[in-house]
Amino acid sequence: MNSPTCSLQWLPFLFLIFSISVTATLYNIPRLSPVGPTILQYPEAVSASVNVSDDFQTFYYNQTSNHFNYRPESYSTFQQRYMVNSKYWGGANSSAPILAYFGAEASLDDDLAFIGFLTDNAVQIEHRYYGKSIPFRSREEALRNASTLGYFNSAQAIADYAEIIIHVKEKLDAKYSPVIVIGGSHGGMLASWFRLKYPHVAIGAFASSAPILYFDDITPQDGYFFIVTKDFREASESCYQTIKKSWSEIDEVASKPDGLSILSKKFKTCNPLSTSFELKDYLETIYASSAQYNHPPHYPVNIVCGGIDGAPSGSDMLSKIFGSVVAYKGNRSCYVNGPRNISETTVGWRWQRCSEMVIPIGIGNDSMFPSNPFLLSSFIERCKSLYGVPPRPHWVTTYYGGHDIKLILHKFASNIIFSNGLKDPYSSGGVLENISHSVVAVLTVNGSHCLDLHPAKQSDPEWLVMQGNVEVKIIKGWITKYYTDLLAFKK
Amino acid sequence: MNSPTCSLQWLPFLFLIFSISVTATLYNIPRLSPVGPTILQYPEAVSASVNVSDDFQTFYYNQTSNHFNYRPESYSTFQQRYMVNSKYWGGANSSAPILAYFGAEASLDDDLAFIGFLTDNAVQIEHRYYGKSIPFRSREEALRNASTLGYFNSAQAIADYAEIIIHVKEKLDAKYSPVIVIGGSHGGMLASWFRLKYPHVAIGAFASSAPILYFDDITPQDGYFFIVTKDFREASESCYQTIKKSWSEIDEVASKPDGLSILSKKFKTCNPLSTSFELKDYLETIYASSAQYNHPPHYPVNIVCGGIDGAPSGSDMLSKIFGSVVAYKGNRSCYVNGPRNISETTVGWRWQRCSEMVIPIGIGNDSMFPSNPFLLSSFIERCKSLYGVPPRPHWVTTYYGGHDIKLILHKFASNIIFSNGLKDPYSSGGVLENISHSVVAVLTVNGSHCLDLHPAKQSDPEWLVMQGNVEVKIIKGWITKYYTDLLAFKK
Repeated sequence: MNSPTCSLQWLPFLFLIFSISVTATLYNIPRLSPVGPTILQYPEAVSASVNVSDDFQTFYYNQTSNHFNYRPESYSTFQQRYMVNSKYWGGANSSAPILAYFGAEASLDDDLAFIGFLTDNAVQIEHRYYGKSIPFRSREEALRNASTLGYFNSAQAIADYAEIIIHVKEKLDAKYSPVIVIGGSHGGMLASWFRLKYPHVAIGAFASSAPILYFDDITPQDGYFFIVTKDFREASESCYQTIKKSWSEIDEVASKPDGLSILSKKFKTCNPLSTSFELKDYLETIYASSAQYNHPPHYPVNIVCGGIDGAPSGSDMLSKIFGSVVAYKGNRSCYVNGPRNISETTVGWRWQRCSEMVIPIGIGNDSMFPSNPFLLSSFIERCKSLYGVPPRPHWVTTYYGGHDIKLILHKFASNIIFSNGLKDPYSSGGVLENISHSVVAVLTVNGSHCLDLHPAKQSDPEWLVMQGNVEVKIIKGWITKYYTDLLAFKK
Repeated sequence: MNSPTCSLQWLPFLFLIFSISVTATLYNIPRLSPVGPTILQYPEAVSASVNVSDDFQTFYYNQTSNHFNYRPESYSTFQQRYMVNSKYWGGANSSAPILAYFGAEASLDDDLAFIGFLTDNAVQIEHRYYGKSIPFRSREEALRNASTLGYFNSAQAIADYAEIIIHVKEKLDAKYSPVIVIGGSHGGMLASWFRLKYPHVAIGAFASSAPILYFDDITPQDGYFFIVTKDFREASESCYQTIKKSWSEIDEVASKPDGLSILSKKFKTCNPLSTSFELKDYLETIYASSAQYNHPPHYPVNIVCGGIDGAPSGSDMLSKIFGSVVAYKGNRSCYVNGPRNISETTVGWRWQRCSEMVIPIGIGNDSMFPSNPFLLSSFIERCKSLYGVPPRPHWVTTYYGGHDIKLILHKFASNIIFSNGLKDPYSSGGVLENISHSVVAVLTVNGSHCLDLHPAKQSDPEWLVMQGNVEVKIIKGWITKYYTDLLAFKK
């Protein structure tokens, strides 16, 4: 392989790094519902991806449990999992780049099934408290209460990433290899924050669908559901109108003497409904998920609206709504309140939201949903009753910033891509304009949540392919510039 | 007052901010000796300064004890002291600048006696675990063991500063007032690190004599004493030679049957010497302190050498050395091992050095001192025996960086002044070259430790006045640029 300063041979492969599935970064719709949305599955995405790569080696790093406290128990450590694929790496001699993918609120195993070819030196690091990277002796112990959950926060997590990246570079004797950190959704927030806090560890960050501005009052709290609504209305006015009117219809039926059993029958619920909220919550989750993950080629919003608009003529409103459920979920023996699999993501993210990730998403009047404002005081009470400790709603902006980001970072920081698809409801809390020459926003009008991290597919629309090309070009620019600086520095 | 964007009326006063005495930032010579050096006092400095300003109001902020852990006890808070002088401040309407001085390893009270006029909105914040800002119920409780000392570290301290600055700006309704953080020595390290970690809270940092590169292997461990030696040799070759030869002379006398009592008599010790180390340690501390604080107009190194070179002709070597002690300490009834006042700075800084501030200062062969290399393994053992927990010698470079700082920060960060006087032994671990257009080094060939933070005096040499002017001009440039950006941002 040629010297990286005059060769970009690694580049043609780089795009494949984006093939990592985003399942590790599925971002539960941040409501107080303890269970996240059921996500539409794309069987094609799985079958299109290759099998788990044998090129990945698994390692465990003896990680510091508590980076910010020197109490004796802080010296306890835990085994943190990371994986390295060095097969295509140019090596330390050429200071070839290292791409580090940040796990977020899920096990790395969930990613693995989707991993394609990873080139250069690709490192994947699992987030503490997920998968096989559990402080304390067991997951049960780690998640027991606020005391054992105490080390479960973003500052600790990105310090973990710093330690592991430094360790990997030392192991590879790759002191001057530039590191690019990559993440999507919550992992994207971590990646961009990492670049801000650890510029000496990563020369750049690619943050896909990272709503770093959805804290405090920076983003209007109704941003998320405003976009969900917009997505549906743009897909079909009649679909939007039907959904918008359905909530009062549901309430009206529910208020009848045997209303809940009528609804239970109509929606083929697995168990009799105990409240109409159960049904409405289920529907809301379907609509929000389909908007958030409104990916080609199927475009779930179109699928949902197809169920409504394609109902047999003469169908009543609730039949149409049920049609949308069947369209989204497929033919099942029952719906709504079947057995639920409470994942570690659900459990872990609930704590994260109740501690520092206080993303104030509410529903305003200007949506197809019943108004449901986010009330911080209620949220605080709910979290206190769950964990015994209150959340710290201003900590993220204190530690990472976010207010007036353009003013602040215009003359500070460099090399961050904030990519967003504007159909993604979370894009409302994303960085949507360039902050400086190298802290840039990459937007797609039709993109959805973390779409640019998905496996490339034959069916990918032209705009998606172009988005990937733009992102690769920007990262390539950072690395080229770094090599120039490195040569000058070493002189 | 005119609009700050077109008037710099605040500026003529700015220089006075540098009048804050550096007593709060005295940086013990970082040896393992539990007691820091006795520092030469400058009575003039005290008498030249005004009395404690009545314009400062004292406040207490309900500070979070542990910013990085959500364990229930983390929600305990402590009262952190800060002081505000708003008298000369231009006010929130004009977004007048706010200058924040970071306390370091001492009580703010130690500063107060030296504070002159503070202009604009000057805020002084006391470092946790010092002065009146003690977590837990009492100082005794807080310093009891590694468990209660656990929250005593720089990441927690600068998070404190962030919370208080945000709080003060909210109280003053001064959202867009630019904040400049200022500190000297350890406080200077905190100021520069603060700018890197909290760019959204401070638009710039002025770090005087901050040896941020004296960690890991970035700076050669013999840098400090190499400069002490150089300072003495430049002051007087004969003085340097006398000191250099004195150590073996002391050892030789000490090895005689009644050698220690001879030495005790010769040096008028307060108590009989129990080892020659006691004497040598005392002398080393005098030499190091006089080099570190080699301030005009007295230049302690000249004073010490005056004691040696000015000894009556025919004086033997040890009489000359004793002459240097008397010259530095003044006429006292006894010397060397009198009663010691172990200050909170001594106690606190010992913990800080034994936890994260692992500054590896050793003595190499190329000095006027006996060789005494810094052995990390011995240091670790010593700290473990003191506190039961080992230090983390690589944590500072992991969290804040430092390796290849020019390469890393050349395209990242902005608005930091690293000022150093090259006679200051700690300048060996300072940033001595410009990193970028706005991350700059301000050097004085004849300057000493934190000299530019001292009260301005009539006797100040021209180069010192010029240094202050340069620093003011740079900070003025940041603020002017900020106002321009702010206008554009608000449009």
